[in-house]
Amino acid sequence: MSQTADKAPHEMAGVSIREMADAIRALSMDAVQKANSGHPGMPMGMADVATVLFSKFLRVDPSRPDWPNRDRFVLSNGHGSMLQYSVMHLLGFPEMTIEEIENFRQLGSRTAGHPEYGHAAGIEATTGPLGQGITMSVGMALAERMLNQRFGDDLVDHYTYVFCGDGCLMEGISHEAIDLAGHLKLDKLIVFFDDNHISIDGDTKLATSIDQRERFEAHGWNTFAVDGHDHAAIEKVIEEARRSDKPAFIACRTIIGYGAPNLQGTDKVHGNALGKDEVAATRKNIGWTSEPFVIPQPITDAWHKAADKGREAREAWEKKRDAAANRAAFETQYATTLPENLAELMAKARADVVTDKPNVATRKASEMALEVINGATEVTIGGSADLTPSNNTKTKGLKDIAPGDYAGRYIRYGVREHGMAAVMNGIALHGGFVPYGGTFMCFTDYARGAIRLSALMGIRVVYVMTHDSIGLGEDGPTHQPVEHLAIHRATPNLLLFRPADAVETNEAWEIALGEHKRPSVMALSRQGVPTVRAGSVSENRTRKGAYVLKDADGARDITILSTGTEVSIALEAAKQIEAKGLKVAVVSMPCWELFEEQDAAYRKGVLGTAPRIAIEAAARLGWDRWIGEEGRFIGMNSFGASAPGPEVYKHFGITAEAVVAAATEMLKP
Amino acid sequence: MSQTADKAPHEMAGVSIREMADAIRALSMDAVQKANSGHPGMPMGMADVATVLFSKFLRVDPSRPDWPNRDRFVLSNGHGSMLQYSVMHLLGFPEMTIEEIENFRQLGSRTAGHPEYGHAAGIEATTGPLGQGITMSVGMALAERMLNQRFGDDLVDHYTYVFCGDGCLMEGISHEAIDLAGHLKLDKLIVFFDDNHISIDGDTKLATSIDQRERFEAHGWNTFAVDGHDHAAIEKVIEEARRSDKPAFIACRTIIGYGAPNLQGTDKVHGNALGKDEVAATRKNIGWTSEPFVIPQPITDAWHKAADKGREAREAWEKKRDAAANRAAFETQYATTLPENLAELMAKARADVVTDKPNVATRKASEMALEVINGATEVTIGGSADLTPSNNTKTKGLKDIAPGDYAGRYIRYGVREHGMAAVMNGIALHGGFVPYGGTFMCFTDYARGAIRLSALMGIRVVYVMTHDSIGLGEDGPTHQPVEHLAIHRATPNLLLFRPADAVETNEAWEIALGEHKRPSVMALSRQGVPTVRAGSVSENRTRKGAYVLKDADGARDITILSTGTEVSIALEAAKQIEAKGLKVAVVSMPCWELFEEQDAAYRKGVLGTAPRIAIEAAARLGWDRWIGEEGRFIGMNSFGASAPGPEVYKHFGITAEAVVAAATEMLKP
Repeated sequence: MSQTADKAPHEMAGVSIREMADAIRALSMDAVQKANSGHPGMPMGMADVATVLFSKFLRVDPSRPDWPNRDRFVLSNGHGSMLQYSVMHLLGFPEMTIEEIENFRQLGSRTAGHPEYGHAAGIEATTGPLGQGITMSVGMALAERMLNQRFGDDLVDHYTYVFCGDGCLMEGISHEAIDLAGHLKLDKLIVFFDDNHISIDGDTKLATSIDQRERFEAHGWNTFAVDGHDHAAIEKVIEEARRSDKPAFIACRTIIGYGAPNLQGTDKVHGNALGKDEVAATRKNIGWTSEPFVIPQPITDAWHKAADKGREAREAWEKKRDAAANRAAFETQYATTLPENLAELMAKARADVVTDKPNVATRKASEMALEVINGATEVTIGGSADLTPSNNTKTKGLKDIAPGDYAGRYIRYGVREHGMAAVMNGIALHGGFVPYGGTFMCFTDYARGAIRLSALMGIRVVYVMTHDSIGLGEDGPTHQPVEHLAIHRATPNLLLFRPADAVETNEAWEIALGEHKRPSVMALSRQGVPTVRAGSVSENRTRKGAYVLKDADGARDITILSTGTEVSIALEAAKQIEAKGLKVAVVSMPCWELFEEQDAAYRKGVLGTAPRIAIEAAARLGWDRWIGEEGRFIGMNSFGASAPGPEVYKHFGITAEAVVAAATEMLKP
Repeated sequence: MSQTADKAPHEMAGVSIREMADAIRALSMDAVQKANSGHPGMPMGMADVATVLFSKFLRVDPSRPDWPNRDRFVLSNGHGSMLQYSVMHLLGFPEMTIEEIENFRQLGSRTAGHPEYGHAAGIEATTGPLGQGITMSVGMALAERMLNQRFGDDLVDHYTYVFCGDGCLMEGISHEAIDLAGHLKLDKLIVFFDDNHISIDGDTKLATSIDQRERFEAHGWNTFAVDGHDHAAIEKVIEEARRSDKPAFIACRTIIGYGAPNLQGTDKVHGNALGKDEVAATRKNIGWTSEPFVIPQPITDAWHKAADKGREAREAWEKKRDAAANRAAFETQYATTLPENLAELMAKARADVVTDKPNVATRKASEMALEVINGATEVTIGGSADLTPSNNTKTKGLKDIAPGDYAGRYIRYGVREHGMAAVMNGIALHGGFVPYGGTFMCFTDYARGAIRLSALMGIRVVYVMTHDSIGLGEDGPTHQPVEHLAIHRATPNLLLFRPADAVETNEAWEIALGEHKRPSVMALSRQGVPTVRAGSVSENRTRKGAYVLKDADGARDITILSTGTEVSIALEAAKQIEAKGLKVAVVSMPCWELFEEQDAAYRKGVLGTAPRIAIEAAARLGWDRWIGEEGRFIGMNSFGASAPGPEVYKHFGITAEAVVAAATEMLKP
């Protein structure tokens, strides 16, 4: 049977849905073939579902891809990127030219192997690491509901559609995503499962026997199943899903690589070019006569007609927006514009700290900074992975987001660190909010996959990671970070702050909020620390990443470098060394990444030329850059231990006495 | 109503189950109170379930805690560690003295904040990071079935019992665990869910609305529910669960902190000491009249009687073992004894490489090494997280493990990196197998939580992480590791190998198999590399971590340091620099951790005193240790890009030319 038989019933501008879908198939197989790299199976298998969705339902406008109330589309199975690029090209997204399609997976193209946020307007999220997309979509759908409740249906009322595959649904993060979405009743979230029974290793039966519909229903979703190649049925099921009072899951039974006569339905078509012969056979099989990268005009017209519906929807929305009494407030919120006086308020709070000299944990200092921030703006959305009383993330008056009630500003993420991070990515990508969320620093391990995407996408998400060292004490090595500062420092485009006191914590927050193109991780202590900063705090000194906190009284004999809770130990050590008649400077280095961005002269001035000792309750990796070949490092070279914090410090020799001993030895003639 | 009313029906040696359970409650609340730190709620809530399980079903023998066919017990909600310590003390595990209980959470005690594998025999796994325990238990239950099928019911036929809480079941890893366990029909795995409706933030309704039983059923489990304080019902449900033909899930409705009259059932009792008044009130409420850390003799006797049943079971098993024809084979397997001629076989394979000089990817070289290993021993168990054809982890003749058929040696882990890592931990902990498993290096992100536990527990698990750099090419930045080498290098007690060619890959495998007390991560390339080693390969040079691969012809002018696929670039650069009349040494550094363990003289000799340049397609973090303050680093300082691998290298300037240019600049007078 020819696979082009069922053309008749569904069409768009006189062109059948099947022909429109075959355009996706052709572009996808030809682009992968040309690159000799990529994944044709998913785009060919899901082309029918995508065509029905995009031509009949999805509201996007290629001429204004950033229209706030557009529907969001996330390709969670990002290896099927050619589906997204094909659809974007066919709809007429201006950046997604045919040249880009031809340059699939080539250097400098917008058509990377997996969709990359920022490569072309219309790509809503970077996907590829499986399960991230579906979880980010939960964040987008939640942001939509939060804005909707604040500004009404006229301004915000859109769907979030997601494609995902078996891989996404096997990943643990998918559990966190769908549990939270079901709980919060995110009824404008619709997930399409490419139920093709094939993964890289072969039949999915090799590794799973799950009943996905039963699973999603247990998580509070409505579920549907459909033949993913039956256009009328697809249309009908989408209509039903849109009326669902819960998030909707649609299992689309598809044939991977649909259209490729000899390879479809097998793992061979998942991640390899079809090969010239099969491409030719596919052309014949689906009746596609155009040359590679040539789309017949009627098909182009049909796709553009679909795009017109998006433009019309956008224009209708703009009329409502123009008439809305709350337009200005909406635009301020959607742009996450921070109040002009925030810097002033933050500086004032720092001045209060310098006056009061509190001995507080930096997690508490973070709460103090957040009280100022959350009081001054409505754009911040807090949360914690079930460690609210420990992370100090809930400031006074923040109400919980709850099922069906999205007016609040605090998300109970549950014990779902990975989910929290990816949901925050989705919220940030959506627009309207600056998300921050807390857990223990050690459990950034669980969230690594999503934290990396925050950095790769270059979005403003703030990770409030408390209990940042062995100083947390009794919970022991499973909870005591050792390597985690290094992990974040090694990650490109991410700022790790480890503030020494309440002043630096305030400064770190001020910087993080202003960083629109990169995420920040706050490493905050469980245990109290003295206020080490004094004098004027009008300038945000953390902005330079490192600075001389205490200068030597004359040419330095020793420089002590430190961060966070060890800075006060460094100061104590300096005092003891100075008692021996030596000159000591103490450098606080709350953010290495910002320090690296300073000019060489500044860096040299801060580090000095005297022998250097670093003290940090963490792994050494990276410190040699700052201490030089003859430098000493006092820190951790093993996992931690369970005991009261001060005893753990002593046990591992992270003490002022150790610094003094090192200095003495280094200065021995 | 007094909470001690229902004493009568169930008893042990004339002592009621409730009294035995109250001993757990008393020890737990008193130990937490003394430490003024810890989690009394879970031990008090689950004390009844634990008492029924340990007194009536669980087969462990305190006098031989390492008896191979003992039942395994894993406390996945490890914060309830006092439950485990109490039970171990009451049963009479010799290391778990009352002094240890009194020293809960103190330095050097066996009673760390969370159960730490190795602290006391009988603690089967380190838990605390939520969801790890339940997933390791899947590995244990699978190892049991694998051994059972190889050696029969007489030698291996035990249960794996797990306690877990809401947190474990919210974590994504739990999805991966239960999906795999349900698929593989691990019918001797029984999970007890402490269904107390409370998490740290408060009522679990704050963050979840899931139907756990429906969820587990969708994953192929049989499920049960029971009042967690009704001893007869608990006994009955355990009997049913033991007869289940699928893994069994028992939701135990409990009251957190059961017995504490004013705090039970609230989040206040989760993670804080009860306080003196509530401890006293609890004593009164449950009728516990003994002083702290004193157990009435009849209750001790009852618990010891329970332990006697374990001893008898062990003795009965030993008789069967002594009579078993396959005893020797079993013991060799259980001890994971490697064949004596393995070193010889590996050296021979290296010699073949030096003769053939293949240009192969190191992932292929890993397969070559595995062919030798898997052919020589039966203890290795391979697998991949659905990347078998990419990870090259399945050698000839390895059969799949399948539902109900555990004879094979290859596990289809599915797209479950975190699950795979934790299951491998469980297999290694069980005994009988050396697990290795593959995914892309970038997706060690997803497995971080479990990789850290491999290192913390100090167990032999081998991570086969292919596609180890931008060299993978077209898949782009989401798939290209940049910071991942640093992540592993920063992790204590873990060996990261990044071999340069097929010889070093073979050597890395030989070392990894011999490392009984730490895990290894193999960073392996997608792209081909030339064989860089020549001459004699009888000595495993990777054992020293770094060595002079190519010495300078006289006093060095420049030393080039490198790892993995960049070593051949370093050699090419050396050639070009030498063409200018300079003397160049090239150092290969496949394993920094082993290099650090060498004596200072060796390290100095390898690094030399000439200016140093490092080249590695990864983040710089850590390299300054080896290149010194004046050294140069050629590598990545951003995320990667999607394009064919060689173009990506060129784009980021990771080339021989860049090394030559750096050398020229450094040597400029």
